[in-house]
Amino acid sequence: MLKGIPKIISPELMKILMEMGHGDEIVLADGNFPAASHGAKVVRCDGHGTIALLEALLLLFPLDTYTKHPIALMDVVKGDTVETPIWKEYDSIVANNTSIEEPFEYEERFAFYERAKKAYAIVATGEKALYANVILKKGVISE
Amino acid sequence: MLKGIPKIISPELMKILMEMGHGDEIVLADGNFPAASHGAKVVRCDGHGTIALLEALLLLFPLDTYTKHPIALMDVVKGDTVETPIWKEYDSIVANNTSIEEPFEYEERFAFYERAKKAYAIVATGEKALYANVILKKGVISE
Amino acid sequence: MLKGIPKIISPELMKILMEMGHGDEIVLADGNFPAASHGAKVVRCDGHGTIALLEALLLLFPLDTYTKHPIALMDVVKGDTVETPIWKEYDSIVANNTSIEEPFEYEERFAFYERAKKAYAIVATGEKALYANVILKKGVISE
Amino acid sequence: MLKGIPKIISPELMKILMEMGHGDEIVLADGNFPAASHGAKVVRCDGHGTIALLEALLLLFPLDTYTKHPIALMDVVKGDTVETPIWKEYDSIVANNTSIEEPFEYEERFAFYERAKKAYAIVATGEKALYANVILKKGVISE
Amino acid sequence: MLKGIPKIISPELMKILMEMGHGDEIVLADGNFPAASHGAKVVRCDGHGTIALLEALLLLFPLDTYTKHPIALMDVVKGDTVETPIWKEYDSIVANNTSIEEPFEYEERFAFYERAKKAYAIVATGEKALYANVILKKGVISE
Amino acid sequence: MLKGIPKIISPELMKILMEMGHGDEIVLADGNFPAASHGAKVVRCDGHGTIALLEALLLLFPLDTYTKHPIALMDVVKGDTVETPIWKEYDSIVANNTSIEEPFEYEERFAFYERAKKAYAIVATGEKALYANVILKKGVISE
Amino acid sequence: MLKGIPKIISPELMKILMEMGHGDEIVLADGNFPAASHGAKVVRCDGHGTIALLEALLLLFPLDTYTKHPIALMDVVKGDTVETPIWKEYDSIVANNTSIEEPFEYEERFAFYERAKKAYAIVATGEKALYANVILKKGVISE
Amino acid sequence: MLKGIPKIISPELMKILMEMGHGDEIVLADGNFPAASHGAKVVRCDGHGTIALLEALLLLFPLDTYTKHPIALMDVVKGDTVETPIWKEYDSIVANNTSIEEPFEYEERFAFYERAKKAYAIVATGEKALYANVILKKGVISE
Amino acid sequence: MLKGIPKIISPELMKILMEMGHGDEIVLADGNFPAASHGAKVVRCDGHGTIALLEALLLLFPLDTYTKHPIALMDVVKGDTVETPIWKEYDSIVANNTSIEEPFEYEERFAFYERAKKAYAIVATGEKALYANVILKKGVISE
Amino acid sequence: MLKGIPKIISPELMKILMEMGHGDEIVLADGNFPAASHGAKVVRCDGHGTIALLEALLLLFPLDTYTKHPIALMDVVKGDTVETPIWKEYDSIVANNTSIEEPFEYEERFAFYERAKKAYAIVATGEKALYANVILKKGVISE
Repeated sequence: MLKGIPKIISPELMKILMEMGHGDEIVLADGNFPAASHGAKVVRCDGHGTIALLEALLLLFPLDTYTKHPIALMDVVKGDTVETPIWKEYDSIVANNTSIEEPFEYEERFAFYERAKKAYAIVATGEKALYANVILKKGVISE
Repeated sequence: MLKGIPKIISPELMKILMEMGHGDEIVLADGNFPAASHGAKVVRCDGHGTIALLEALLLLFPLDTYTKHPIALMDVVKGDTVETPIWKEYDSIVANNTSIEEPFEYEERFAFYERAKKAYAIVATGEKALYANVILKKGVISE
Repeated sequence: MLKGIPKIISPELMKILMEMGHGDEIVLADGNFPAASHGAKVVRCDGHGTIALLEALLLLFPLDTYTKHPIALMDVVKGDTVETPIWKEYDSIVANNTSIEEPFEYEERFAFYERAKKAYAIVATGEKALYANVILKKGVISE
Repeated sequence: MLKGIPKIISPELMKILMEMGHGDEIVLADGNFPAASHGAKVVRCDGHGTIALLEALLLLFPLDTYTKHPIALMDVVKGDTVETPIWKEYDSIVANNTSIEEPFEYEERFAFYERAKKAYAIVATGEKALYANVILKKGVISE
Repeated sequence: MLKGIPKIISPELMKILMEMGHGDEIVLADGNFPAASHGAKVVRCDGHGTIALLEALLLLFPLDTYTKHPIALMDVVKGDTVETPIWKEYDSIVANNTSIEEPFEYEERFAFYERAKKAYAIVATGEKALYANVILKKGVISE
Repeated sequence: MLKGIPKIISPELMKILMEMGHGDEIVLADGNFPAASHGAKVVRCDGHGTIALLEALLLLFPLDTYTKHPIALMDVVKGDTVETPIWKEYDSIVANNTSIEEPFEYEERFAFYERAKKAYAIVATGEKALYANVILKKGVISE
Repeated sequence: MLKGIPKIISPELMKILMEMGHGDEIVLADGNFPAASHGAKVVRCDGHGTIALLEALLLLFPLDTYTKHPIALMDVVKGDTVETPIWKEYDSIVANNTSIEEPFEYEERFAFYERAKKAYAIVATGEKALYANVILKKGVISE
Repeated sequence: MLKGIPKIISPELMKILMEMGHGDEIVLADGNFPAASHGAKVVRCDGHGTIALLEALLLLFPLDTYTKHPIALMDVVKGDTVETPIWKEYDSIVANNTSIEEPFEYEERFAFYERAKKAYAIVATGEKALYANVILKKGVISE
Repeated sequence: MLKGIPKIISPELMKILMEMGHGDEIVLADGNFPAASHGAKVVRCDGHGTIALLEALLLLFPLDTYTKHPIALMDVVKGDTVETPIWKEYDSIVANNTSIEEPFEYEERFAFYERAKKAYAIVATGEKALYANVILKKGVISE
Repeated sequence: MLKGIPKIISPELMKILMEMGHGDEIVLADGNFPAASHGAKVVRCDGHGTIALLEALLLLFPLDTYTKHPIALMDVVKGDTVETPIWKEYDSIVANNTSIEEPFEYEERFAFYERAKKAYAIVATGEKALYANVILKKGVISE
């Protein structure tokens, strides 16, 4: 633990966030996501939800402004009637931390898997909500 | 995630719990414990408290009945006037899960460190309470 | 060994089962299956049959309900007149543990090999029955 | 699997048995033995009993005739009133496979642990019987 | 060394033979074969001939009966007038140990190299005879 | 790079600072310190001075208040008449960042080496000033 | 540190520069460059600018004279109106150290990324200037 | 050092030469060759010339007689007017050690690089002569 | 294989012999010697006898002339009436290759084990003769 | 190779020299020195003499002026009548490069071995001269 660093972020996750550069992506994967089989680097965050992690990350992590939608969500599978209330929560967290107008884009399930494979890291959370997976694209620190 | 397994327990922690045998010890270390320098195997559980982990562990992990006190706490340093309310919570969790009469013993700070070094693993939690470190000694599965 | 965990499941196998996510596959390979040459992760279960392992696994492991047939068997090679009585036993174990209507699909021998290569892990059993290989696709834990 | 090799013996265990020489020791540890913390090389045999392994081993493994008692059992802890019926079974297996007169010696629990640490390998079985741990000392192949 | 195991087989080679399954191949390479550059797993058997190794292997290793010719030899390069007397010896060893009618097929030199690359292991012998390389395909243990 | 994290701190150094716990020590070694031979973990910071690193560290790193002097300097070797102006700079940096009254203690050269060997990490800077080596003992995060 | 070697060059970076041969390339990446995801070998130089590194490198490192432009810069993205004053500084450093007439070529952003992936190493600096990334192609030492 | 083995050959290089088989290639690279980026196995021979190494190698290493030209040199780049006096020295060394009529073939620079990548090893010498790179193809030991 | 190198010596063994210096020791262990548990570096020579290896080694390996007896044999255990005819063979091999007057000394069994642990390497042969273990101390190459 | 760096120094040796700090020692070992068994880090310089290496090193490497004799030679063994002409050459090289008055001390053979074990690295040369081993203690770079 250090002064001013959110306690939910492990030393290994902090190192990964710092190593990432402009355009690199990180996945916040829900508890059912096949993380171990899709990512070279997997950080386990068992027992934590994606909300708490997203809030902690956005304090440190700049989103990419060179792309239209720096955040990707996994789109609902055709025919699936499930609700995705967690998206609203994501919306308000991002709105509180950034000034991006339309931060979200939607990836079809298997396209999302392919994109996750190319991400720099996958954070394996214990999130129980459905369609809770998130990909964040890192922006530039210019100060 | 699997059916019936507490979500706070990571795959790596589960493996470690299963590998341990009669008499092996595991440390639930609070957020300020020097885990990385005292344990060959360290499992990170950043952002979690020791209460939630102790509850999850006792569902799976038998305490040693061949020893008088299968649980060790770090004793308050001489002259320190701090309160240790978390000990009461430990007391009630253990009472709810086992029938051991006097489960706790108390180790002086540096003796606790030495014992931690010989433990099979240290679970590095983010617990903020003071004197919250716990050592559990594994018992026998006889069924 | 832990309370309530089937003793046939090794610490390493438990870790693998927990790491797997929605859509990941695991192979229960019979004693003649070329496991070491087809799988990045191989868990040895020499001396055990596939029946005992399948029963233990289904207590913990949810089958995928997003796919029609979450279990694959290796189809009998053309011209081969061998009987496959073990399939009936699989049928009744699955029926006892799930409510999937038609759990099984059949893969031609070499297609089965290719699919095994992409599985998350192969469990190398000592099963002597012929055509006893099984692939299980993991489902979602939604509770 | 190979012709004439007991199926309960894994490739790794076979390699270890072959690497051992005159005077090297191997431990058949019961399910509660702290194998992972006491042995540099641990072979997992979850779900198997020590009886089946002892029988398989003695087909391949010569016992040391340069020492009085080439097999060590863990002695019953003082005051413990438990029965050890498995010792009789060990007795008859050894009698059937060798002509050693008094094959067994008895080690106090913690002395047994220390000796296990120096053994060449520990086989971690799932044996449920109490006091079922066995140490075998390898003899000479002179043919 | 163990009772009943041919002494020419090293612990590592034994482990490899046991790990192999139905359809996996192993190469007995002569002393000039480029083993290190063609095989992921290479077992050194310097100073031994292929005859002694083939005899030892066939005691343990079943040949594949699902294929016409479970043994491949490297064919004589076009225009080469060298004799291959070692083939006759192979012939009589195989005839003594199996009842396969036409066990041998012949691979052109570079096709043989490519097949060796995909084999599970290459045994690098010190055989001096020309055209002495052999590929064996493993069969099924059905007893 | 991340928002609010000093740019001089590398991802690896950040991870190390986060892994450290109460009582763990870190060495800021000057350019002539034998870092590689005295520390299990060495972080290279070639080309940087100790002043800049000390300032960055104290923003994140709490000093130990359970000990009288949480910072150790290498004492001037007997007979050496060199001046140590960098100590004054250390004094003012520590005064600006903490309220510890007498933060410094002085270790004899070879005692300093021994203590450095037990530290959690050594940061190998390019500092040219003499007697510029510093050991920091980590304190508790209690908020 | 050694006599006559610039202090900003770490032992690892020196080794890499010496290992490189004619035609090999090295990237000096600015602080936002995705170094960890684009290079097999990454040397961290956090907190340093590209100017200081370029100056130190050119003292030791010959530029390739077999190619027209041995240095590549990342071209400004179309539509971007940012200034790149650091290029002038690069220009004068190169002019002072070499006699190459037109040392620079310009790579489009994503082509630059691809080329960086094939470079022998990436030096991850903390340079804050925009469009500060540089690729150097090594020349021949002929003396 | 051993009796009768040239002192310029390191233990590692000797092992590599022995591991090579018929048709495997080894590169003697001059001091400017990009060895580290082109070869999986690189043996450093800094400070030595190719002449001394070639002489030492040919005492132990048979050249391939199944191919026309068992030695490849890097051809002079078009338009380059440089002399290559070292080739004559190669010529006389090879003539003194073998009876091959036209041992040399010439590879264009980039074709040479590609071939070097597939070689079994690259020996990185400190040879200063231009166009001094050599590829040797191993022959058969038939005695 | 190389010109003039005995074929029984593997590439790894050759490398070890070359790495050894004045005073380093190597063990030729018989088939029952506990090699794997007594040596950091073990070279397997299964199926070979110690006679053939000793003959090959002495062609390359100088014995130490700074010590009285550069070769150690394992002394016959007290009370053991076994003959050791292999010692005579050793005697004549050494006499044929060197001019040392009394090359042999005799070590008690457990003292031999301790010395073997400190040797640079152990060669695990398949020698069946009793008391066939040999330790060789390397001498100086002075030519 | 780089501008101004002696060609006899390999990339790995350069890295080691740079990593060393005040008081660290490096051994230039002659061709008969048991380097591999006495040093954690060994740099092979087969085929080179100690003279050439010492000259190259002293261009870069400062000798320790905090100790009386920063260079140690291996003393002639009692009774040995060999001459050590190489010491004179060492003397003149050191005199040409430094102004140390009595740079040399002499260590008894086995004391030298013990000191070599604690050195940071051993450079294994092919030097044939007797008593040619040298230990250098690194000094301070103060410019």
